[in-house]
Amino acid sequence: MNRKMVFYMFGRIGQIAALLLLLPAVVAIIYGEYKQLWAFLITAAGAVAAGTAISLLCRTKNKVIYAKEGFAIVSLAWICMSVVGAMPFTLSGEIPSYIDAIFETVSGFTTTGASILRDVEAMSYSMLFWRSFTHWIGGMGVLVFVMAIVSNMTDRSIHLMRAEMPGPTVGKLVPRGRDTAKILYLIYIVMTVVQIIMLWVGDMNLYESIVHTFGTAGTGGFGIKADSIGGYSSYSQMVIAVFMLLFGVNFNLFYLVIIGRFRSVLKSTELWTYLGIVAVAVVFITVNILPLCGGVGDAFRQAFFQTSSIMTTTGYSTVNFDLWPSFSKGILMLLMCFGACAGSTAGGLKISRVVILFKLFLGEIRRMLHPRSVSSVKFEGKAVDKQTLDSVAVYFAVYVFCIIAAFLAISFEPFGFETNFSAVLATFNNIGPGFGAVGPFGGFADYSGFSKIIFSLAMLLGRLEIFPLIIALSPSTWRKNR
Amino acid sequence: MNRKMVFYMFGRIGQIAALLLLLPAVVAIIYGEYKQLWAFLITAAGAVAAGTAISLLCRTKNKVIYAKEGFAIVSLAWICMSVVGAMPFTLSGEIPSYIDAIFETVSGFTTTGASILRDVEAMSYSMLFWRSFTHWIGGMGVLVFVMAIVSNMTDRSIHLMRAEMPGPTVGKLVPRGRDTAKILYLIYIVMTVVQIIMLWVGDMNLYESIVHTFGTAGTGGFGIKADSIGGYSSYSQMVIAVFMLLFGVNFNLFYLVIIGRFRSVLKSTELWTYLGIVAVAVVFITVNILPLCGGVGDAFRQAFFQTSSIMTTTGYSTVNFDLWPSFSKGILMLLMCFGACAGSTAGGLKISRVVILFKLFLGEIRRMLHPRSVSSVKFEGKAVDKQTLDSVAVYFAVYVFCIIAAFLAISFEPFGFETNFSAVLATFNNIGPGFGAVGPFGGFADYSGFSKIIFSLAMLLGRLEIFPLIIALSPSTWRKNR
Repeated sequence: MNRKMVFYMFGRIGQIAALLLLLPAVVAIIYGEYKQLWAFLITAAGAVAAGTAISLLCRTKNKVIYAKEGFAIVSLAWICMSVVGAMPFTLSGEIPSYIDAIFETVSGFTTTGASILRDVEAMSYSMLFWRSFTHWIGGMGVLVFVMAIVSNMTDRSIHLMRAEMPGPTVGKLVPRGRDTAKILYLIYIVMTVVQIIMLWVGDMNLYESIVHTFGTAGTGGFGIKADSIGGYSSYSQMVIAVFMLLFGVNFNLFYLVIIGRFRSVLKSTELWTYLGIVAVAVVFITVNILPLCGGVGDAFRQAFFQTSSIMTTTGYSTVNFDLWPSFSKGILMLLMCFGACAGSTAGGLKISRVVILFKLFLGEIRRMLHPRSVSSVKFEGKAVDKQTLDSVAVYFAVYVFCIIAAFLAISFEPFGFETNFSAVLATFNNIGPGFGAVGPFGGFADYSGFSKIIFSLAMLLGRLEIFPLIIALSPSTWRKNR
Repeated sequence: MNRKMVFYMFGRIGQIAALLLLLPAVVAIIYGEYKQLWAFLITAAGAVAAGTAISLLCRTKNKVIYAKEGFAIVSLAWICMSVVGAMPFTLSGEIPSYIDAIFETVSGFTTTGASILRDVEAMSYSMLFWRSFTHWIGGMGVLVFVMAIVSNMTDRSIHLMRAEMPGPTVGKLVPRGRDTAKILYLIYIVMTVVQIIMLWVGDMNLYESIVHTFGTAGTGGFGIKADSIGGYSSYSQMVIAVFMLLFGVNFNLFYLVIIGRFRSVLKSTELWTYLGIVAVAVVFITVNILPLCGGVGDAFRQAFFQTSSIMTTTGYSTVNFDLWPSFSKGILMLLMCFGACAGSTAGGLKISRVVILFKLFLGEIRRMLHPRSVSSVKFEGKAVDKQTLDSVAVYFAVYVFCIIAAFLAISFEPFGFETNFSAVLATFNNIGPGFGAVGPFGGFADYSGFSKIIFSLAMLLGRLEIFPLIIALSPSTWRKNR
């Protein structure tokens, strides 16, 4: 374990956190929120001081990063960002409890969007901006961001990407990991700008457009109104619904579009499965909620928005879907676990894992009928190597185990089975709202401090796809030799 | 597909079903229940006539059974037994609805123990006897029973055992499959007799002893009182609790004890994991329910009985555990999925699968840290071959998928999330009672006919471990050539 390099990177992350805090500070100046401005500046000053000190102390010539170091750096980075990012909320007095602030910030960076705020409309402009900005940063990944801007990274940085990017496999688009990170961030920024403009020309002002775009791009779901997106025009709702879907697509496909390889995009199994599942779910839900709505058009709009929101693990809502029939709620609960495509900003299992699991199932039937036959699983036209297959199957088992463990840990809470279970699904899959008391019009405010810490851990485990955090938290990782 | 052989066996199963119906007919004579006697005799006559006709028509010299035929025969056998076994309930008028009778019989043969009866104490002696006897038959397996008594089976019969015996792998104890079946049934019968005697010397009469032993041996859980085992003495409760645990042990271990290989038994990972999980669960639940009980001894007895009952997927209860704190209920819900050992009469995932999944998880962490290392998973001292590992991981994924699908299918029912979800777990894992309206003092009577069919399918899928039934139900299996 190259501990020096890990702590050096940890220090650099502190500096980055300080840098990121300057943007909400500017917003605070614009809106004349000086108490908030101080909260941001003090936190930034502390972070830059501590970060610089640590990175100077831990300077090392041995910049080699292996898998172990990669997992440790990524886990520390996310914990560091959350601890620092929560400070302004508490310093400004807007979220007095630091545990609550941690929950809210972890929920932001992990693009979950679950909230402990009882009255979101009472918050200041700059704090709501920072809260949504964490979605945008967390969506693409803290470390990928670092890779895109820090120049002296070694080529081993693929270990960082692998630990942070969602999905069963990580491909470099171009030979150098750093360049891949830059391309991904460029696509991300361009799509963000387009969405801001499209919302701005509707009934949202610039501030609202930016904040909601951050929430969409990161597939986060923090809003600034008590009824989420329900109060905006159908135009704004549809723009957000479509962009949620877009940000749930594997970003590699956008790169292929840019370099003109449209045919590869059209052949993507994951893309078509993703869109197919959304289409089927929308049809079922539209029919199911028809009696509650004013006509087919209205039912379709609500079904499409909510399906897109839950499938991409965003969590915005235009309607209190907790009041829907339980069949529709059942479908949403299933989609919560599926998540969107690998290589997107979404949480959950990822479509590619679901597809591979399904193919493994078919392969198992084949094997039972013809024990001596040799079969391979194909995905996106290529045979999936044995190790990836194993990883997917094992990941699923660990995924279910984590959900059960988290559910047991919070089972003493008095909110009943549906609320507790959907709260675990909503945090672990980085969605945000669940059903019952944590439904789209409810929140996590009434949970105990202990449960909030469990939920924070669940969100981090879900965002980092379990293994990096477990490896980073196990003492054996930190032993000096090897 | 050797269709003739499949139907020939199907006919033989009909004859066996008729034979088995003679035992409750004798009970009907003893208790002077002549309406019930006729119901049994008419059903038996019909089954023996139809069975003989089919087996004569489908006589074939080609007795070869491959995997495909094995799955088809086992699935047909279970469906046939359920359809025939349900007849007496409806013919006698004690369960007027045939769908209800099918549910009850499937629940019996699959050793689930879920019931649609609103007042079990109003039933006749002979019907309650038949109901519990189905547990005893289903516990060891219909086909294993056939193998043990029918003499002209080919040596390919291992395909039948493989399709019917629970657990990730099936070993022959002795070279010939038929002899293995005989040994297993002998152990089963001896243990049954011992338990009957031990209950008889307590406060149960002979009839009660036999009926409750059938429910214990098959890990089924059908009782004859509204409060299950709650009204009997602590002695009887403890005897049942201990025997439930024993019937949850892999029967191969009992065989090893008989032939004197005690050291192999003591080295069994599965056995110790099984007992360890029970011990840990009992301690946690005892502490958790202490405030509800009259002292530590009482709390321990209740915790031990309920843990043993749920872990072995039996479903007897001495107390309404639906009223326990949600932490204890959470633990029970986890144990519902674990199930007991492979090669026992229990349902659920089986401990060996849970252990292998856990080792796969550790292996995955190792692989992420040292990508080039070669690792193998060991279980019971031997390296598990790659195909079994894959099967276990895939089985788990399909298992979860089936639970979700069943849950969605019944989600229109108005009983709320906890009841519906635990009802699916309770049927699919062959346990019996769940929580809420289907708790130990509730039942499945209020579900619609459609849901009862879904539950019946879930019970069969759970008992046959999913794949045999899916293969048997797929049209391609029945094509003539190959």
